[in-house]
Amino acid sequence: MKESNHEPMGLSIEPKQFTLSELAAALGEQFEGNPDLLISGVAGIKEAGRGQISFLSNGRYLHFLERTEASALVVAAGVDTKGIPAIRSENPYLSFLMIVRLFSQPLRHRYPAGVHQTAVIGEGTVFGEGCHIGANTYIGEQARIGKNVVLTPGVVLLDRVVIGDNCILFPNVVVREACRLAERVIIHSGSVIGSDGYGYAHDGKVHHKIPQIGIVVIEDDVEIGANVAIDRAATGITRIGRGCKIDNLVHIAHNVEIDEYCLIVGQVGISGSTHIGPNCVIGGQAGLAGHIVIGEGVKIGAQSGVTKSIPSNVCVSGYPARPHDQSMRQSAMLSKLPELMKRVKDLEEKLAECANAPNDEKRGSK
Amino acid sequence: MKESNHEPMGLSIEPKQFTLSELAAALGEQFEGNPDLLISGVAGIKEAGRGQISFLSNGRYLHFLERTEASALVVAAGVDTKGIPAIRSENPYLSFLMIVRLFSQPLRHRYPAGVHQTAVIGEGTVFGEGCHIGANTYIGEQARIGKNVVLTPGVVLLDRVVIGDNCILFPNVVVREACRLAERVIIHSGSVIGSDGYGYAHDGKVHHKIPQIGIVVIEDDVEIGANVAIDRAATGITRIGRGCKIDNLVHIAHNVEIDEYCLIVGQVGISGSTHIGPNCVIGGQAGLAGHIVIGEGVKIGAQSGVTKSIPSNVCVSGYPARPHDQSMRQSAMLSKLPELMKRVKDLEEKLAECANAPNDEKRGSK
Amino acid sequence: MKESNHEPMGLSIEPKQFTLSELAAALGEQFEGNPDLLISGVAGIKEAGRGQISFLSNGRYLHFLERTEASALVVAAGVDTKGIPAIRSENPYLSFLMIVRLFSQPLRHRYPAGVHQTAVIGEGTVFGEGCHIGANTYIGEQARIGKNVVLTPGVVLLDRVVIGDNCILFPNVVVREACRLAERVIIHSGSVIGSDGYGYAHDGKVHHKIPQIGIVVIEDDVEIGANVAIDRAATGITRIGRGCKIDNLVHIAHNVEIDEYCLIVGQVGISGSTHIGPNCVIGGQAGLAGHIVIGEGVKIGAQSGVTKSIPSNVCVSGYPARPHDQSMRQSAMLSKLPELMKRVKDLEEKLAECANAPNDEKRGSK
Repeated sequence: MKESNHEPMGLSIEPKQFTLSELAAALGEQFEGNPDLLISGVAGIKEAGRGQISFLSNGRYLHFLERTEASALVVAAGVDTKGIPAIRSENPYLSFLMIVRLFSQPLRHRYPAGVHQTAVIGEGTVFGEGCHIGANTYIGEQARIGKNVVLTPGVVLLDRVVIGDNCILFPNVVVREACRLAERVIIHSGSVIGSDGYGYAHDGKVHHKIPQIGIVVIEDDVEIGANVAIDRAATGITRIGRGCKIDNLVHIAHNVEIDEYCLIVGQVGISGSTHIGPNCVIGGQAGLAGHIVIGEGVKIGAQSGVTKSIPSNVCVSGYPARPHDQSMRQSAMLSKLPELMKRVKDLEEKLAECANAPNDEKRGSK
Repeated sequence: MKESNHEPMGLSIEPKQFTLSELAAALGEQFEGNPDLLISGVAGIKEAGRGQISFLSNGRYLHFLERTEASALVVAAGVDTKGIPAIRSENPYLSFLMIVRLFSQPLRHRYPAGVHQTAVIGEGTVFGEGCHIGANTYIGEQARIGKNVVLTPGVVLLDRVVIGDNCILFPNVVVREACRLAERVIIHSGSVIGSDGYGYAHDGKVHHKIPQIGIVVIEDDVEIGANVAIDRAATGITRIGRGCKIDNLVHIAHNVEIDEYCLIVGQVGISGSTHIGPNCVIGGQAGLAGHIVIGEGVKIGAQSGVTKSIPSNVCVSGYPARPHDQSMRQSAMLSKLPELMKRVKDLEEKLAECANAPNDEKRGSK
Repeated sequence: MKESNHEPMGLSIEPKQFTLSELAAALGEQFEGNPDLLISGVAGIKEAGRGQISFLSNGRYLHFLERTEASALVVAAGVDTKGIPAIRSENPYLSFLMIVRLFSQPLRHRYPAGVHQTAVIGEGTVFGEGCHIGANTYIGEQARIGKNVVLTPGVVLLDRVVIGDNCILFPNVVVREACRLAERVIIHSGSVIGSDGYGYAHDGKVHHKIPQIGIVVIEDDVEIGANVAIDRAATGITRIGRGCKIDNLVHIAHNVEIDEYCLIVGQVGISGSTHIGPNCVIGGQAGLAGHIVIGEGVKIGAQSGVTKSIPSNVCVSGYPARPHDQSMRQSAMLSKLPELMKRVKDLEEKLAECANAPNDEKRGSK
């Protein structure tokens, strides 16, 4: 089976069409070219084909102008598009995003209301109106599902789970007993919410499991990537605050609390009971120790190892993590080590000469 | 859907009630307060609400005494609870854990025996008594399932899998062909046991797949977190020893052998054919090279990169991993580098003076 | 349930038998011992039991000869097998692999053609001949599935997915809307292809989701491990090139492009829009920044942090990643820091003596 050549690459999920003038009008911007030019999709400037609109905002990509097959571009006022029809914008990237949204089907359209005949739903579970309950889903007992919730195939919700309005859970997501999602939460495939926390009491030989009887609470507008694991609290709550965005393969241990609007990038690990203040950004593969407190607006570099609490509005990096400028200076120092080594050797030699020479002279002058 | 205010947070998975005197009697400890006080749940001191019992063992949390809403506390003998009913214990945390266990439903109760009508079970597969086979599970042919095993919704077991008594597999766990779990093994959602090892033979251009025809053996009382991947052996066995506890998102490659009672924390990666002795602790995000041998009782710090074998009872950290005190000293040295740089510069200047000065004097003395 | 002692460990997935002379003939090699000796399986030399063949290629394992229970061995010409029947080969490991393949059932045999009655298949989806569509699978609308494709239990393919001939997807794999697999692609359990990329526009407070309307394209002969996450492009394509082999728990962000025949080892993370040239090897737990270009044949050490583009045929390691010999030198320097510290202290003392001594002498000589 070869790649079909009939469809341009970078296809949108569901086909739609707009004219160039319709798009410009939707943005409230000026345009150049045939107003009736039909645009059937969006793509990056490298991938765009006939019928698609792209954008240029980064000077580095200017040379793609020569060979793009895009039928139209969103560009800033000054840019010469070599005759390619254009929509002019002060912020081409944001305008392009608005066009992308025009081409994206609203979620409702893709997932009509209804319960698939293969869904298994436990006693005492209630739904709001407009829910899409997909094939091979399982919902336990006494769950409460809000309005317009989308559960795609293979989703598993155990007993007493609470899901707010307009949430979407992608295939094979698992939410364990009694965990709660607020509204408009998106969870990508394979993620697990509410697995048991990693808690054991050691008796000198055997590790005895500490029952993990808390829950996970995920607040409004959180998005969680694929194959993430967020453990339920030992007791109490593991909490992901309003508007946080969590990337793929992130590990969040029991009783972690993350305040609102944080970004947690791919493969980060956060140990138990750590508290992260609002508006933090944690770079990919960083690791945070347990029982520490990260202030507000903290930025943690990729692959950092954070072993201590961090005050607000600090930027840290490295292992162990320290203020980013210190880390940078240390890193610069490191690259000067060979030179330093040589300078010390020179000093030793000169000092040896120096120590010998005057003595000799002195001896000589006696 | 707003958070309900009717249920206190930190709710237990299944509701139960005890009186204060019943709890104290169960622990064999003294108490102060109304013996008939009804306790309906457990929680951390921050989250505890009316009707719940909490505990205090860490002096850092003492100030929560002023504003906790817990109806009772487990505390050490000397602590003034400001009138809050209390159970006195030499080890408040362990006593609290015992109370947590009283409130946790036994597993059997939550998962009654029976096979859900949507379960698909292959020919020649046999079960012991008391098994719970959940909705949308799949079991291949010739599998042997012990007594009182719990397979929750979406679990997939392929042909010839062997599962011992009293195991529990959480939703969407996969166990591939012929892999074997001993007794009382717990596997959390999304984990994969027995995926093919990463083995290829390179012919100078193409990587040819080496068939992975070994298995995974998981011994008694192992617990495995969410979204873990444990690869089957190329030939032979990938083995997880008795009583090991593995956290979320851990990667264990083919032919790894882990001896009994190890702790493997979140996001650790262990490369192929490495052998880990008993009672080791491997910190989060550490990585181990392949074909090395880790002794008994070794402690490996978080984010370490272990490139060589390690003898027993050593504590290592850093990259490349070395004895922890060396790593710490090196780390301390690093922070002194700017100062060292300055001292070398001073030396150079002084030596230059020193070298010139006598010359000048000598010249002056001519 | 105890381990059965009836089957030797390291059993093959499906039982088969060959005589020693048949195996030698299949390899075109000489053998010593009873030509009719029945061999029923393969195993490593430590695990091999009666009836199994093993191999010896590494001198380190020579002492296992004394106590192996293998019924036959593949060894080089000179090796004394102490009477154990042997097949002689210039490359015992490769010959053993060929025997392993003889014992491995062809995939077709294990997964006969047919659609399980519990599979759910959307309108407009078409299949080639010979496909195995397992229990509890879900395929959306307008998907195109090639010939001899194996979808094991719990696999979910959303609308408009394209799967080429001879692909195999292991249990609980998810492929999201419109993503495309070419031929002979293998994807292990729990992996997610086409989850939304991590893209947000920040308005100073809230992170607004950027619709991710591109796709993932996976080319011929790619193998992907367990619990991997590969994000769909924002627009355009996230591409995994022909013959790449990706290990478990790897994170590949939106718009990444990986050229042919790369090896990406466990838990690697690759940030958005990074391009990796052909024939690269990326070691376990390494992280790559976004929007960088890695040349051809680059080797990236385990746990490296790659922050900049790398030219072709370079080997890098460390954080930040730099040429491997530099990293090694720096690492060696680091271990000499305590000594350097001491040498600088010595210098300071000697210089102080040196500076004082003459002065004293001079003073003394006044």
